[in-house]
Amino acid sequence: MNKQRILIVSGTHGNEINPIYAAQKFNNLKMLNSVNKTVKYILGNPEAVSNGQRYIDIDLNRSFRFDESQSSKNHYEVKRAFQLFEEYGPKGLNPFQVAIDLHTTTSCMGTSVVVYGRRQKDLCLAAILQDKFGLPVYLHEKDSNQTGFLVEAWPCGLVIEIGPVAQNHYDPIIVKRFLIILDYLESLVDEIKSSKVKLPREIKIFTHKYSIDYPKDENNIINGLIHPLRLNQDWNPVKHGDPLFLNIHGETLVYLGEEELYPVFIGEAAYREKNIAMSFTRKEIIKCSNEWIMNLLDF
Amino acid sequence: MNKQRILIVSGTHGNEINPIYAAQKFNNLKMLNSVNKTVKYILGNPEAVSNGQRYIDIDLNRSFRFDESQSSKNHYEVKRAFQLFEEYGPKGLNPFQVAIDLHTTTSCMGTSVVVYGRRQKDLCLAAILQDKFGLPVYLHEKDSNQTGFLVEAWPCGLVIEIGPVAQNHYDPIIVKRFLIILDYLESLVDEIKSSKVKLPREIKIFTHKYSIDYPKDENNIINGLIHPLRLNQDWNPVKHGDPLFLNIHGETLVYLGEEELYPVFIGEAAYREKNIAMSFTRKEIIKCSNEWIMNLLDF
Repeated sequence: MNKQRILIVSGTHGNEINPIYAAQKFNNLKMLNSVNKTVKYILGNPEAVSNGQRYIDIDLNRSFRFDESQSSKNHYEVKRAFQLFEEYGPKGLNPFQVAIDLHTTTSCMGTSVVVYGRRQKDLCLAAILQDKFGLPVYLHEKDSNQTGFLVEAWPCGLVIEIGPVAQNHYDPIIVKRFLIILDYLESLVDEIKSSKVKLPREIKIFTHKYSIDYPKDENNIINGLIHPLRLNQDWNPVKHGDPLFLNIHGETLVYLGEEELYPVFIGEAAYREKNIAMSFTRKEIIKCSNEWIMNLLDF
Repeated sequence: MNKQRILIVSGTHGNEINPIYAAQKFNNLKMLNSVNKTVKYILGNPEAVSNGQRYIDIDLNRSFRFDESQSSKNHYEVKRAFQLFEEYGPKGLNPFQVAIDLHTTTSCMGTSVVVYGRRQKDLCLAAILQDKFGLPVYLHEKDSNQTGFLVEAWPCGLVIEIGPVAQNHYDPIIVKRFLIILDYLESLVDEIKSSKVKLPREIKIFTHKYSIDYPKDENNIINGLIHPLRLNQDWNPVKHGDPLFLNIHGETLVYLGEEELYPVFIGEAAYREKNIAMSFTRKEIIKCSNEWIMNLLDF
């Protein structure tokens, strides 16, 4: 890795303000000794941040598709995605090879990592973070309804997702968690170069299977909420017959699948408009190879 | 009180969804025995609810001023305020004399009551609720920056404010708390008529003094958050020298006043745009008079 190679993005969703504050604080603290800067901080969606909204027209973190035919090309976020890619993309004016996108969730996810697909470099970076901090890793793949994530536009990238915290609500504990991750990322390039980082033998991941919506009535109005026994139980297993929702009539709706699955993003506020009440994942273990680290450095 | 006299409004802020669900659930449960309906449920800001936003153009719950000269009269919420008042106001087509407006907050307020000014009927209703459930009462007054609240447009009215809960995030516990209040309000008219309700001797209130903003840098960017020792401490006293904020440089900013005050709406997400980090209140006791109950019935 050369100098200035990790792009750290906060405010990709304008109402997720704690990572913005953490980046601001980190920049502030680092001002005095930023001679060999390998990391650059940018705001993903400045307009949405100003407005305190997730997005202006459409979700920026689903807009990195660069599909000319899409009807949405006049949308602010589609233009912003192009602009970011042209400036900071791997062949941009000011190129970066790694993008880390900082997000918060209203779900009880703790501090977690999200990767999109099975790119070796992403899994390598996720394995390093899991080994260092014990973080759960959500592997999002094979979901045609959810595409165009920011980090997919870079050769290597992942999301740090921390919750629960309300949108637009500052929480010093959430800020602190981001600061710990940022501090580690700042040192990571040098540590990899000096061979201080060892890969674990394997990485434990939660692989995306499918998402489910809230129960709805004949007018498409939500008429059931996450069951109290399921709320805040992200990463914990669901077995056949376990409660998922409690509907407006007081009836419990249960999980009818046979396979033990692990729900994530349970009740995430921003996913209601995407018709997602929670996403089911399957536990999986992937063996790591020490070659991965060498490839991570090789751009 | 005649029949159909209490107007219960949810969704005055479109991203406060738990009271909407509670009202929907309550309506659903009551469908079978709604012959003598004294209570009507409406949505305050249907457009904002559809969009999952607090408001479309401006805050509906600051738009009940009916000030012809205001530059904002083309705003959706100004029109909506007129519409609601013409339909359901005390001299409207379908008149109501009492309005209860249901809100949530991201602050750790618990279940609380907010009244605006010292109208006897409002204080009477607040006293009844405080006596029944032990709720804290926030008396908002003498704040020229915050006017035009919905319930002020009705001869009697108050806000039920419950938190903490994220915007747009369903929480069955918050819903349950609203259901308890709604259940009581449904029975209240009959209970008052049959003299089953006794007023307490006094009502304890937290009277609004002033609000303070977050610390900001020379570019007007927030550079300090609520101090971890102050966060979630709504209704608890602040004395001279107590921490209020922790700034980006790690410095603690303390309360410098001499009078012991009680902060509320600490860190409320929606008030950041109003330049409010918290509001200070003073504890006060107001003697109740049994005449108040008779006047409550007398419209």
